Amino acid sequence: MSTAKYTIGIDFGTESGRVVLVDIANGQEIAEAVHAYGNGVISDYLPGTDIKLEPDWALQDPQDYLAVLEYAIPQVLDQSGVDAADIIGVGVDFTSATIMPTLADGAPLCFLPQWRTNPHAWAKLWKHHSAQPEAQQMTNIAEEMGYTFLNRYGGIVSSEWTLPKVWETLNDAPEVYQAADRFIEAGDWIIWQLTGAETRSAGMAGYKSFWSKREGYPPTEFFKALDPRLEQVIDDKFGRAVVPLAARAGSLTAQAAQLTGLHPGTAVATANIDAHVSAPAGGIAEKVGRMVIIMGTSNCHILLGEAERMVPGICGYVEDGIVAGYLGYEAGQSCMGDHFAWFVKNCVPAAYSQEAASRGLDIHQLLEEKAAQLKPGESGLIALDWWNGNRCILVDFELSGLLIGATLATKPEEIYRALIEATAYGTRVIIENFEKHHVAVEDIVATGGLPGRNKLLMQIFADVTGRSIIVSGTTQGGALGAAMHAAVAAGQAAGGYESIVEASQHMVHLSDQVYQPTPDHQPIYDHLFAEYLTLHDYFGRGANNVMKRLKQLKAQVTLGA
Amino acid sequence: MSTAKYTIGIDFGTESGRVVLVDIANGQEIAEAVHAYGNGVISDYLPGTDIKLEPDWALQDPQDYLAVLEYAIPQVLDQSGVDAADIIGVGVDFTSATIMPTLADGAPLCFLPQWRTNPHAWAKLWKHHSAQPEAQQMTNIAEEMGYTFLNRYGGIVSSEWTLPKVWETLNDAPEVYQAADRFIEAGDWIIWQLTGAETRSAGMAGYKSFWSKREGYPPTEFFKALDPRLEQVIDDKFGRAVVPLAARAGSLTAQAAQLTGLHPGTAVATANIDAHVSAPAGGIAEKVGRMVIIMGTSNCHILLGEAERMVPGICGYVEDGIVAGYLGYEAGQSCMGDHFAWFVKNCVPAAYSQEAASRGLDIHQLLEEKAAQLKPGESGLIALDWWNGNRCILVDFELSGLLIGATLATKPEEIYRALIEATAYGTRVIIENFEKHHVAVEDIVATGGLPGRNKLLMQIFADVTGRSIIVSGTTQGGALGAAMHAAVAAGQAAGGYESIVEASQHMVHLSDQVYQPTPDHQPIYDHLFAEYLTLHDYFGRGANNVMKRLKQLKAQVTLGA
Repeated sequence: MSTAKYTIGIDFGTESGRVVLVDIANGQEIAEAVHAYGNGVISDYLPGTDIKLEPDWALQDPQDYLAVLEYAIPQVLDQSGVDAADIIGVGVDFTSATIMPTLADGAPLCFLPQWRTNPHAWAKLWKHHSAQPEAQQMTNIAEEMGYTFLNRYGGIVSSEWTLPKVWETLNDAPEVYQAADRFIEAGDWIIWQLTGAETRSAGMAGYKSFWSKREGYPPTEFFKALDPRLEQVIDDKFGRAVVPLAARAGSLTAQAAQLTGLHPGTAVATANIDAHVSAPAGGIAEKVGRMVIIMGTSNCHILLGEAERMVPGICGYVEDGIVAGYLGYEAGQSCMGDHFAWFVKNCVPAAYSQEAASRGLDIHQLLEEKAAQLKPGESGLIALDWWNGNRCILVDFELSGLLIGATLATKPEEIYRALIEATAYGTRVIIENFEKHHVAVEDIVATGGLPGRNKLLMQIFADVTGRSIIVSGTTQGGALGAAMHAAVAAGQAAGGYESIVEASQHMVHLSDQVYQPTPDHQPIYDHLFAEYLTLHDYFGRGANNVMKRLKQLKAQVTLGA
Repeated sequence: MSTAKYTIGIDFGTESGRVVLVDIANGQEIAEAVHAYGNGVISDYLPGTDIKLEPDWALQDPQDYLAVLEYAIPQVLDQSGVDAADIIGVGVDFTSATIMPTLADGAPLCFLPQWRTNPHAWAKLWKHHSAQPEAQQMTNIAEEMGYTFLNRYGGIVSSEWTLPKVWETLNDAPEVYQAADRFIEAGDWIIWQLTGAETRSAGMAGYKSFWSKREGYPPTEFFKALDPRLEQVIDDKFGRAVVPLAARAGSLTAQAAQLTGLHPGTAVATANIDAHVSAPAGGIAEKVGRMVIIMGTSNCHILLGEAERMVPGICGYVEDGIVAGYLGYEAGQSCMGDHFAWFVKNCVPAAYSQEAASRGLDIHQLLEEKAAQLKPGESGLIALDWWNGNRCILVDFELSGLLIGATLATKPEEIYRALIEATAYGTRVIIENFEKHHVAVEDIVATGGLPGRNKLLMQIFADVTGRSIIVSGTTQGGALGAAMHAAVAAGQAAGGYESIVEASQHMVHLSDQVYQPTPDHQPIYDHLFAEYLTLHDYFGRGANNVMKRLKQLKAQVTLGA
């Protein structure tokens, strides 16, 4: 090819959508634009109404997704000066299990006046947590009926997944369920808007809706056992066609081309899950045994395996779910950056804020500086990192945070460090659980927003896990990963690539920041991790369900208001 | 008597000494003066040296005590215009188990140049906590040898008490032990300075040195079993003469009269323990079954009983130890005001400090206002109030603080309220333990610095304990109690009183602030208290000694520096 070729990656996150334009020869990000969702995360009142949402609810407005296409794509074209003719593909990644009811033509129910005031008509965001009863019942019924599909998902259905949310709609708003011709992942819905054709991503269906390449969806008998009205939910509301990752889902319609400034007919890749798509961008395809951790508000752990292993308590594994030819294992922690943000907002005294301001530091930088002067074990503190529940390996969002060991001499930076250490212990639990079930974890690539910003965090993760941690060369792993998939969807004939492995060889760049475990720290962290595990099991495995009871009591006294 | 009579009460606290001049006819405080100790609590470096103290050390400088006599007594005389001839007595209360080595003439070793750089030569303050190994060994040996005297002290020797500290001196600085002609409570030492005669208070000896009216001190065989060098510790370093409370310990010397501006020959009462002396001032003599809680940096619970009951885990009981004719039971919590001070210093964000400042509120007032808007159970939090260890009923200073139930929505005022609730649960543990062992607790008088300042605190204590709480009419319960004892020491002939019961009838005044338990809150707090108890027993009774192990690890890594 004589001229350079480019792809566009669009990363739909929790608060905003980010578009990057990438040179596929080297993965270089030429231009970037971000568009924040106007309605953000809807957890208080339904927009434009005084309808109060229940606790644990989290909705979104699909109009905000369209605005990202309309405003951010033209921006990267403008900024870069790249000719739209040289843009050979568009890739999308999206938060997953963000599910919405639509009509047969793809119109979201919440766009229609008659449904706009029904909360169930809106997109239920991944962290919409109120379908816990449905999730629990799904686990129980699958177990009772002897189905094995849950083995692929650690044995437990999460309230974050797609089908509990759909069932919740049926239970609480059967009229919305009836009116919905389709329930669709927001990521697949965006592809539909770009290509005019409804597709279902193998990644989304595989990780969030119990689908597998070999077995398809669970049988109708299972859904019937949940509720007779759900018997045909897959055929009626989803459809059974599922498209592999990095495949060409379709081509840009004239209407979408007009909206975005791209050429009609540009290749559009299957939607991908936001965290997952960072894994190829983190070099996961370079070696089996490399765990990519995407560190943002929460943590997502992705790992490839050559053999199928049942690993309890993980989010799941899907054949070809990350990279074709491999089992793609996923685990996660529901609280990471959120943890530190909570601490900074609620627990850092004025004297520290003043010191940070007077020294021209960000408060996180000040805390990191102070916490880095402590030795492992010096704080005398241990925390359980469950401020937002436990995604893995306990899969229990009713759990809550714990801090132990405080004295009158305890300082804020000691608590801050204990919270960092707790997230590292949480990751070590996940790693040891993988290894116990014969999925090796040899080294770690850290990507996402946090790794480049907090050296102490990275060093503690290396010390606690006993593994070297390589920092990704991009902070836009999601969008870059989507752009890599776009290059494969466009294919060699258009100047793209044959496979994600080939795209990786050209487009991935890791940084030269590598954190090695500190030998002196490891025995101390081994000791502290043993303490963490004892507390983890005591509070997390039923010996003392005080966390759940406190949440129930809170709900009772709040409702009694 | 034609003219009014007055007494002076001197309350030697942890940070300062406070002098009040009281009209004994009605207990009215005519004048008051405070003198802060120049060297305060010495826990970092020995004054004037670069000698670093070990963690858990807390010393004081006896010169600071003398300064209170010299500066604060003349101030109250000046302020009040009262003729020193009408001041019929002086009473002293002091922190207890604050122990110092002296020569035979009462000169503290730390005043002598050759001993000034030895930390063991200084006064070891009540909260000097490094004699834990000695305390533990005393408990073990007393048990092994079948002695029953520990039954009077809940069965466990505290590292805060006198004899473990003396033994620590013998172990770590035998030359100081040798050079000391006497080891004496700081309160008794001040009486010595006022009267020129060494006396030992029955309160101090009874509660802090295993002495009882019927049995005296433990036998020499016990001390020999601890260490042969300790065999004669009582005869050699203490003496066996012990003076009852409210007795006349002696009369003011000419030298002391010159120092203070009082008349020579003025009656001086036996020293009393700072917290205990507040109990008569809180009206404890008015009815059996009334618990007086002295709420300051820590909590002290005083209760009279007519019968002798073995109550495990309390600080102790002494016959005639509070009021003649009754068993005086004492329990305590090692962290109260200190708890909230720690929280305010370390955990309250700048936004709250700004709000308080802009509204002209103290930060405690702002937190109280916000926390008062929460319902019981609404925070979803429970804490264990062990930031400074547990004095009762576990008697374990190796325990530490715990907070459970935090989420990303947890706010500072919720943590603040959880800490208040935790101290109330701690008091309920103490009350239930008394009642289980047949010592009734019918109502509560709250005295000390906190009760008048924090309505929410009082209400939570009433709700959690299920008992009405009367707020004392004085915030100077210590100094007032000392002045009551001075009036009894002076005796009827001088215009004083016959007994503490008689003095109470004239001098005690309770406020009309009475907090009643809120019926709606009690079942919720019963539930939360049950959760507290489960955690209390799990972490406090050996099922999981993580708190101790974390402290050990902290000590190891700090020492390894």
